[in-house]
Amino acid sequence: MNDISSRQLHHRHLEQARAQVIELLSRQAVERELVNRSGEGPERSAKQDVVALLVARQHQAALEQRLAGFHPADIAFVLESLEPEPRDLAWSLVRPERRGAVLLETADVVRRALVCHMPADEVADVVRPLDPEDIAELIASLPEESRRAVLERLDQADLAEVRSVLSFPEDSVGAAMDLDFVSVREDASLEAVQRLLRRRKELPSHTNELIVVDRANKLRGFLPISRLLLGEPESTVGEQMSRDPVFFYTDDRMQEAVTSFEKYDLVSAPVVNLHDQVVGRITVDAVVDAIAERAQTEGLRKVGLSGEDEDLFAPIRHAARRRWPWLAINLLTAFMASRVIGAFEHTIGALVALAALMPIVASIGGNSGNQSVALVIRGLAMNQLGPSQLRRILVRELGIAVINGLVWGFVLGVATFVLYGDPKLALVIAAALTLNLLVAGFVGVCAPAALHRFGRDPVMGSSIVLTATTDSMGFLIFLGLAAAFLV
Amino acid sequence: MNDISSRQLHHRHLEQARAQVIELLSRQAVERELVNRSGEGPERSAKQDVVALLVARQHQAALEQRLAGFHPADIAFVLESLEPEPRDLAWSLVRPERRGAVLLETADVVRRALVCHMPADEVADVVRPLDPEDIAELIASLPEESRRAVLERLDQADLAEVRSVLSFPEDSVGAAMDLDFVSVREDASLEAVQRLLRRRKELPSHTNELIVVDRANKLRGFLPISRLLLGEPESTVGEQMSRDPVFFYTDDRMQEAVTSFEKYDLVSAPVVNLHDQVVGRITVDAVVDAIAERAQTEGLRKVGLSGEDEDLFAPIRHAARRRWPWLAINLLTAFMASRVIGAFEHTIGALVALAALMPIVASIGGNSGNQSVALVIRGLAMNQLGPSQLRRILVRELGIAVINGLVWGFVLGVATFVLYGDPKLALVIAAALTLNLLVAGFVGVCAPAALHRFGRDPVMGSSIVLTATTDSMGFLIFLGLAAAFLV
Repeated sequence: MNDISSRQLHHRHLEQARAQVIELLSRQAVERELVNRSGEGPERSAKQDVVALLVARQHQAALEQRLAGFHPADIAFVLESLEPEPRDLAWSLVRPERRGAVLLETADVVRRALVCHMPADEVADVVRPLDPEDIAELIASLPEESRRAVLERLDQADLAEVRSVLSFPEDSVGAAMDLDFVSVREDASLEAVQRLLRRRKELPSHTNELIVVDRANKLRGFLPISRLLLGEPESTVGEQMSRDPVFFYTDDRMQEAVTSFEKYDLVSAPVVNLHDQVVGRITVDAVVDAIAERAQTEGLRKVGLSGEDEDLFAPIRHAARRRWPWLAINLLTAFMASRVIGAFEHTIGALVALAALMPIVASIGGNSGNQSVALVIRGLAMNQLGPSQLRRILVRELGIAVINGLVWGFVLGVATFVLYGDPKLALVIAAALTLNLLVAGFVGVCAPAALHRFGRDPVMGSSIVLTATTDSMGFLIFLGLAAAFLV
Repeated sequence: MNDISSRQLHHRHLEQARAQVIELLSRQAVERELVNRSGEGPERSAKQDVVALLVARQHQAALEQRLAGFHPADIAFVLESLEPEPRDLAWSLVRPERRGAVLLETADVVRRALVCHMPADEVADVVRPLDPEDIAELIASLPEESRRAVLERLDQADLAEVRSVLSFPEDSVGAAMDLDFVSVREDASLEAVQRLLRRRKELPSHTNELIVVDRANKLRGFLPISRLLLGEPESTVGEQMSRDPVFFYTDDRMQEAVTSFEKYDLVSAPVVNLHDQVVGRITVDAVVDAIAERAQTEGLRKVGLSGEDEDLFAPIRHAARRRWPWLAINLLTAFMASRVIGAFEHTIGALVALAALMPIVASIGGNSGNQSVALVIRGLAMNQLGPSQLRRILVRELGIAVINGLVWGFVLGVATFVLYGDPKLALVIAAALTLNLLVAGFVGVCAPAALHRFGRDPVMGSSIVLTATTDSMGFLIFLGLAAAFLV
């Protein structure tokens, strides 16, 4: 059954193995359901029951063993891919001592679903073997009540550390840092450090460097592990260390750590408190998680969804309601645009062709403006847009709008003339398109820049502001020009 | 002038220092421009020229020194933030021996702009000190012609390695791998390995583990550096190593490496060829770059821009033209929607209120559908959507569409009744909204899933397909119902 040899950890084999297990679990859950149901009927004999039960047990034992061979992240993947019923079955097959590690790898929504069914005692047992910062991360996603229940059941020492991590704001370096690190003094010899390290059974994960501190635990520099290995054993840490560590304060935002890790290719970096004392490390795995999470939620934030709350298997009613704010705002802006049209009903009544043509002007404006928005948002995310750059981009986008307005205005004008044979109508729509592209370029640059300036997420609001403007202005410009020159 | 002490590598200080240098460089470029211009006038004395020149030289020497204290990534940031003229000035102030490292950190477009002005000889000199995989990365972004010119000027040994890296497809693990790694044999003692390592002056960056190979250079496992440090010196590599390395083939896609690094918190992993021989490593910094790049280009791809080509300071004409395909497609879909309306001109002529109301139905459909698209795209990116999950999501999104259609259809119906006092019109628009939300939910799930299934990028096409459908269908449903029941 175990078709992954220990030497074959290529992702394709893992994917296959995972897919098999998911398939088996789903089938297993259906079977159990069937057994339960048919058991209700009177015609089912006790013997059949026993056989079905034995077969089911055998299957489950085999599945349990396969799950035991998986990395916690792969088990988490399996759990996330399953519907609620087989998911519960799978969870019951994960060995208790591994449940903490698995929970840590599981998406928030699924984690919450799993933990909510467990008594607080059991949750406490499951999380106890984990590192304090991991415990904090886990229970931060629990409802307030069960969080307190679990905290009460932890050891005193753990509790203090967990509380300290929980006290940092969610998106800070402090909340994501690793409390486990090895620090050494400048005057120690490399040999002494090596001896010291040998007494530990292992190093904290992602230890590519030892942190050098003074007596007051203040950051002095770092000693790369490679220099510890390659340097003269008699030389001191002070002689071998680097004195220019990139470091972070506990209240720095994770985004700042992400930028630095990306630029300087770091594996880990010390985190200090306000007195420059080392309190932990931030490691590249936390940074990778932060980047990946940001990337995955960006598409969702753009359409007014939060990402965190989006369990694909949550009840429909809740999911529907979570989309209301976004739909409400869009209904409002669409309604405004509609009132602009309403003001020109007389004009449209006189020339019905306008009704068919006006959405084109609005729509191309929105599309063109969204290109500007995307460029500005990327520039802002990369920290490349100071005030002078923004001014330059605005000029640029307006220039592009003029060029594209003339080009596509011409195309649309010709198409309109061919369709309706009215040269004045063709001119009006060409002019309206060009003007609306100018509006789109202006709003496309200014909306994200302004949202960013006022500390709002430009990803979330820009597109609404833009579309509201390009729709209303598109209708206004086109119908206004038509009212003035055509009707 | 040098206000960054070597101990203060906090990103805020770096940001300040960078901003100052950018400011100084811009001013410097303007000054030079002014000096040049005023030098043209006849009233300017030779003495004034000399003074201006001396001051300029002094400023430049100071700037050169500050740049020399920067990390290559920070110099790259400065270059990317500058407009073409001060950018060239800054580039001339970067010391030649650092230019290769700086180019490596610079965005493709800026890199190309800088390199295009340099003679091939100079480029070859600049890249020669780099690792072969870095040389390959650099010149991969050059035009074919200058690429060949630079390749011809490289040493024979480098050339072979560079060519081998260049032969891998762009998005593959092979193209991103690091050729520099330390491999050991199973029968060596830890002590012998340590002695061997001491002969090297340093380890390749991101060496958190040594790769264990057999005589044929085939992958056997890995020895974490920590075990080398902590293990008994007399024990052998075979006794201390892990036999289950996560590894990659050279032709695996980077996205697969990203997923594995994310899941297993790796720092580096061996890369093997088709004969299972180790040919390199993939390291976490390459993975971080890949994630960040993907994230930064997603917003751009969504609006038909490529990301790679988007230099914010490229000539407007080129930029305008790069947006044409996207605008053309959107003009086409908008035109289709317009023809749908055109078919109902008679209906609209009879009841002009329809013209004002119809964009609301289309617009809400698009917004609601884009929420489904975002969810499905995230699910696809996270590898969470098999066929059975997709079916489930489709049912779910249709369910949500029914709920939201009834809720917002009611709201819109009431608003319509208040405005126009026509109960039948209110009923028609409520029904049209509900039906269009169903269409949006269906297309919002199926469009990205289908694009993904046929190997296309769902991020790029989904939104166009969706909007084209919700616009045309929105108009068709609303005007069709109106034609049937109202006019």
